[in-house]
Amino acid sequence: MRVKRPTIHDVAAAAGISRGTVSRVLNGDRYVSPAARTAIERAIAETGYVVNRNARNLVRQRSGSVVMVLSEPHEKLFEDPNYSTTIRTAIRRLGERDLSLVMMIAGDDRDREQVLRYVRGGHADGVLLLSTHAGDPLVDSLHSGHIPAVSCGAVIGRESVIPFAACDERGGARQMTEYLISRGRRKIAMITGPMDTPGGIQRLEGFADVLGRKASTKLVEHGDWTHTSGELAMARLLERVPDLDAVFAASDVMASGAMHTLRAAGRRVPDDVAVGGFDDSSVAISTHPLLTTIRQPLGDIAEETVRLLLDLIDGAEHVESVTLPTTLVVRDSA
Amino acid sequence: MRVKRPTIHDVAAAAGISRGTVSRVLNGDRYVSPAARTAIERAIAETGYVVNRNARNLVRQRSGSVVMVLSEPHEKLFEDPNYSTTIRTAIRRLGERDLSLVMMIAGDDRDREQVLRYVRGGHADGVLLLSTHAGDPLVDSLHSGHIPAVSCGAVIGRESVIPFAACDERGGARQMTEYLISRGRRKIAMITGPMDTPGGIQRLEGFADVLGRKASTKLVEHGDWTHTSGELAMARLLERVPDLDAVFAASDVMASGAMHTLRAAGRRVPDDVAVGGFDDSSVAISTHPLLTTIRQPLGDIAEETVRLLLDLIDGAEHVESVTLPTTLVVRDSA
Repeated sequence: MRVKRPTIHDVAAAAGISRGTVSRVLNGDRYVSPAARTAIERAIAETGYVVNRNARNLVRQRSGSVVMVLSEPHEKLFEDPNYSTTIRTAIRRLGERDLSLVMMIAGDDRDREQVLRYVRGGHADGVLLLSTHAGDPLVDSLHSGHIPAVSCGAVIGRESVIPFAACDERGGARQMTEYLISRGRRKIAMITGPMDTPGGIQRLEGFADVLGRKASTKLVEHGDWTHTSGELAMARLLERVPDLDAVFAASDVMASGAMHTLRAAGRRVPDDVAVGGFDDSSVAISTHPLLTTIRQPLGDIAEETVRLLLDLIDGAEHVESVTLPTTLVVRDSA
Repeated sequence: MRVKRPTIHDVAAAAGISRGTVSRVLNGDRYVSPAARTAIERAIAETGYVVNRNARNLVRQRSGSVVMVLSEPHEKLFEDPNYSTTIRTAIRRLGERDLSLVMMIAGDDRDREQVLRYVRGGHADGVLLLSTHAGDPLVDSLHSGHIPAVSCGAVIGRESVIPFAACDERGGARQMTEYLISRGRRKIAMITGPMDTPGGIQRLEGFADVLGRKASTKLVEHGDWTHTSGELAMARLLERVPDLDAVFAASDVMASGAMHTLRAAGRRVPDDVAVGGFDDSSVAISTHPLLTTIRQPLGDIAEETVRLLLDLIDGAEHVESVTLPTTLVVRDSA
């Protein structure tokens, strides 16, 4: 059924120029006369020739692709609406450089092996890690394989190995905690993320920066970013500290779960208990009351992550990680 | 910095077998003796040889990739959390066939041209369309180019051209409307999706199937899937029909918007106005009260869509589109 595609021979014939010269132009060789270049470009337009990227990439030893590796366990993978902005931004920025975005999942060892085989096989020029947990063996494999790799958000314990762009996790948590204090709250609890992620660790650090000794372990519970974990953590906090008057959840989704538990326990938000989130995702405008939260500049973080990766692919020896400021968004829950 | 990769020559030498036979095994040729095959597989393991996919695909005239095309306008692209399940499932199923998932956006003509160039250039074996609107010129270009293409959700007006897997949009809307009636609601309004999408058109058809003449245009407003459009549509409905006692929104996100407007207008949900959604996305458990909705089997739809595409890529002349049943999920809003 398919019509035969025009080949480089057709272009050469139409241009009246040797196939070798056509090939040199297609591969970006600058030492070709302007007249020949113009004739070839006209012939390409006439014949409708399309460069076979498989062939071109073979010659260049470039794959023309970048892999985005999603490292969460499968079930939780996309529960967080934040991924979407990152993926969209990466498609756009890579596309401007004629690079495609290939998506892979690395939830377990078998998945990670597949990613490594793909990259080592020369099918990708670099790797963009998303939400990689501390101790993920993929990180060291990428590093020892000299594979250009960056991370959207820091990889805990490997900050000096994998360049990253991230929001100021700790500063953002300080903003929210200070805001809750400024609203007269005196017994502030926290629901953290997983303690092998920067969002888990550093948002707790920011909370502790502000509260000092008041940030007792009694007032801290750990979640795993999911709605359910927010519900359960809130229940444990209420049992332990029934007179708490505020809770800062390290994600909007967990904050939404916490609000359910508070409501079920008969506590009014924000009258009895103020609730603060983190992310400013679509969930923040679905809760009632609307969620007061910390906005991450997700688009900018994704832009910077892609820029770091492109610099590495282009041969930079070293690139500087980037930290971007957050914004307090006051709505109705605190 | 990179260590030299083992080549097919190294494999042939280690196996003590000719390079031609190694190549035939690598390309899936079945007419090779079991002994030779075993020796080659052992040699591949020993040498750590990785097939150069660019080279293999050149030989096979296969790209080894499938493109997922996201066709929404950019801003709304990922507002709907449903995309995530579809993307995740597609990565998994394609991966099992050693196919990578490449993501592209086709929001405007320039984007669409880029997709066509990519596929025509032989960089993808097929196209998986997501949320393509009626009249999208990309559809006819893919069809006339004999490019294997399927859609997740039907493409309105091109159902016979682009095979699809979808939920029973119309049946699901009937389920919700019948449920609202069974709960004693008598003046039921609807907020539809965009009328150039199957979810927009067919969910309204299901609503009208049940209500017949009672589904007057006075009781129908149109949204664009976003939270804000749900808020605005609800405001218009309340102004026109102040005594409505139920509203069926064609998506959870729009239902969440409608609930905000109802609350601001002093209407209790569900006491004064029952609210039903569609999707059963993460938003449905973030609202208060929790949203009664229609669950789409998103994972199954994605599985079936990928299966249809693989059949086409494998050379099937014709594949049958698939429609999967929905489920009513009763929570607290209706």
